[in-house]
Amino acid sequence: MRKVAIIGVGCTKVGEHWGTSLRDLFTEAALAALSDAGIEKVEALYVGNMFSGYVQEQEHLGALLADSIGMPGISAAKIEGACGSGGVAVHAGYLAVASGMFDYVLVGGVEKMTDLSTGHITTALMMAENRDYIGFTGVTFVGLNALIHRLYSKTYGAKPEEIAAIAVNDHNNAVNNPCAQYQYPLKIERVLESPLVADPIRLFECCGIGDGAASLVLCPLEKAKALADRAIEIAASTVATNVLSLNERDDLLVFDATRKAANRAYEIAGVKPDDIDVLEVHDAFTITGVLALEGLGFAKKGEGAKFVSEGNISLGGKIPTNTLGGLKARGHPIGATGVYQVLEVVKQLRGDAGKNQINGAEIGLAHNVGGVDSTSIVHILRRCG
Amino acid sequence: MRKVAIIGVGCTKVGEHWGTSLRDLFTEAALAALSDAGIEKVEALYVGNMFSGYVQEQEHLGALLADSIGMPGISAAKIEGACGSGGVAVHAGYLAVASGMFDYVLVGGVEKMTDLSTGHITTALMMAENRDYIGFTGVTFVGLNALIHRLYSKTYGAKPEEIAAIAVNDHNNAVNNPCAQYQYPLKIERVLESPLVADPIRLFECCGIGDGAASLVLCPLEKAKALADRAIEIAASTVATNVLSLNERDDLLVFDATRKAANRAYEIAGVKPDDIDVLEVHDAFTITGVLALEGLGFAKKGEGAKFVSEGNISLGGKIPTNTLGGLKARGHPIGATGVYQVLEVVKQLRGDAGKNQINGAEIGLAHNVGGVDSTSIVHILRRCG
Repeated sequence: MRKVAIIGVGCTKVGEHWGTSLRDLFTEAALAALSDAGIEKVEALYVGNMFSGYVQEQEHLGALLADSIGMPGISAAKIEGACGSGGVAVHAGYLAVASGMFDYVLVGGVEKMTDLSTGHITTALMMAENRDYIGFTGVTFVGLNALIHRLYSKTYGAKPEEIAAIAVNDHNNAVNNPCAQYQYPLKIERVLESPLVADPIRLFECCGIGDGAASLVLCPLEKAKALADRAIEIAASTVATNVLSLNERDDLLVFDATRKAANRAYEIAGVKPDDIDVLEVHDAFTITGVLALEGLGFAKKGEGAKFVSEGNISLGGKIPTNTLGGLKARGHPIGATGVYQVLEVVKQLRGDAGKNQINGAEIGLAHNVGGVDSTSIVHILRRCG
Repeated sequence: MRKVAIIGVGCTKVGEHWGTSLRDLFTEAALAALSDAGIEKVEALYVGNMFSGYVQEQEHLGALLADSIGMPGISAAKIEGACGSGGVAVHAGYLAVASGMFDYVLVGGVEKMTDLSTGHITTALMMAENRDYIGFTGVTFVGLNALIHRLYSKTYGAKPEEIAAIAVNDHNNAVNNPCAQYQYPLKIERVLESPLVADPIRLFECCGIGDGAASLVLCPLEKAKALADRAIEIAASTVATNVLSLNERDDLLVFDATRKAANRAYEIAGVKPDDIDVLEVHDAFTITGVLALEGLGFAKKGEGAKFVSEGNISLGGKIPTNTLGGLKARGHPIGATGVYQVLEVVKQLRGDAGKNQINGAEIGLAHNVGGVDSTSIVHILRRCG
């Protein structure tokens, strides 16, 4: 396999872009990434997106968006893996370059959620679960996570404020990210006073609904090295799945897809969790982030919430996490999130993270999830040279 | 790049499977392909599908179907390229094996169209075009093809019976394919007497609406050779796009994505159109098949209809085409079609095509399209050893 690097990144601000179409959001991010890479043309495009068929009644995003960025003719496809669509698109782009088929590849993630009402988006999110068996029970996606949250608290005696602490960390970090959806700090009291959405999950423990697009330019590491330390190596790119539905799993409190994807990625990159300098975890809900930290090997089973509440994930902590806001505060435009995460790790490794820069960051990890850890995608990135 | 081979194929009959879910259709085809390959486990799954979000309100087919076939844990994703979703899924599987990341990969295409009424499917098909600009004019997908059909007839003086001849060829070949949706022959008079759907396209010039799933097992050619002549090499796998909307194209009568994908594939495989022994073209409408034959280089510009009507594509003709029924008679379960096509070429090259066997077939080509040639996928397959 050829080694692969990221040589350009670009994104829109996450927010409620009422006046901008999905196509225009994507194009803005893609052109920014191409400009950042200093190239004008790619050979292939992989678009991560979950909702376009349901929300915009628009499929065929590969050809549509290749055309929109002025590159009709190139190879293109849409890649979907629920909330992990962005991550699987990065993986597809990685394989395309690693294979030797293409030298320059654009990966983008885009989602425009505000074209539907919130109630319909709640329905749409359940497309990540088994519609025939679980969707028809009437349970919502946040409801499934609430079951896990409750079980975790009961099993390990984790306190509400320990689990909720991850949302506070996200908001504190988003203050300095101009692309974040919610650029304001949040106190733990405010989280714990916020209304229940699905008991015991509270409003400020849930990511919001937002629109956004993020994009990366990939090429072989050999070619990227000409760009010196602007290029970031993809040291590992892995995808794993888990039994889809919670009721069929052996242990509801193990993120097995995350565990599998992470262990394989550590093996490929030749690193351990201790070697990671900066981390992006998929915390669509606070409990998701906690179990992700355990699955990735940063905290022991049952100790994730305590790990967070003790400050280990803050900018000055043991493993700075979601340094530009995470899903809670940067935002979670579903199919774009996995690409935003990789982009933010790239910013840290380049030294471009502004006030939230982790000095000397050499190795970063981005963790994206589809469903309740039914698909998990891990990317380990490394500074070059 | 590693060379890649197909070592197993499986499919369901195309039809109106009212009593079978999308998941069960996929599983039937996937297990048949695994059994045919003689293996029990793969490392990755790529699912081609266009409509599941819109029709079944079900996304996340990668994880869902990995689970359904008893392989939770493996890497998985859904790949979408409108009516070319099956083809881009095969391409994704090809890259995954060629890269060296995975040895054994399952590719599947699945579509369950009968879960919606015909009118809604007409709407769904327009998701292949630009919804914001073209969808809102009210034109249907068959309407777009009708514009091209009319222009082709006017420009080249092609007669209705010349263009319609491709449907007759499909039906004649489907008679001996137990997996075909319409297993009966069709006379040219019957086509020309059938009702107009979108003038000048008649009912029997359009593929029907159907459900189906097809599946392939891929592995490195080196490993496949142990299976002797059961293995078929993927000598080339290419994807190209075109300007999405007809009104923005320089020449409506050139399938430019097909031309680009085919020329690249011929170059990679080191073959010319004359070397191809058996061909599958994407003839969603008769005019689509005609323009595909020109784009692929089998007929000159403006001569495709004449080429067909002179019998060149029949089983005993110059280039036997759609030997097991094509889109018109085998059927066109959207996201599955590109996989059915590759499977049928494999059957011919293996000598497994029954009464429609093309003796001594060594090299075959499968051509799949999304939109009105907005995405085109070409696979060139070759007998091993």
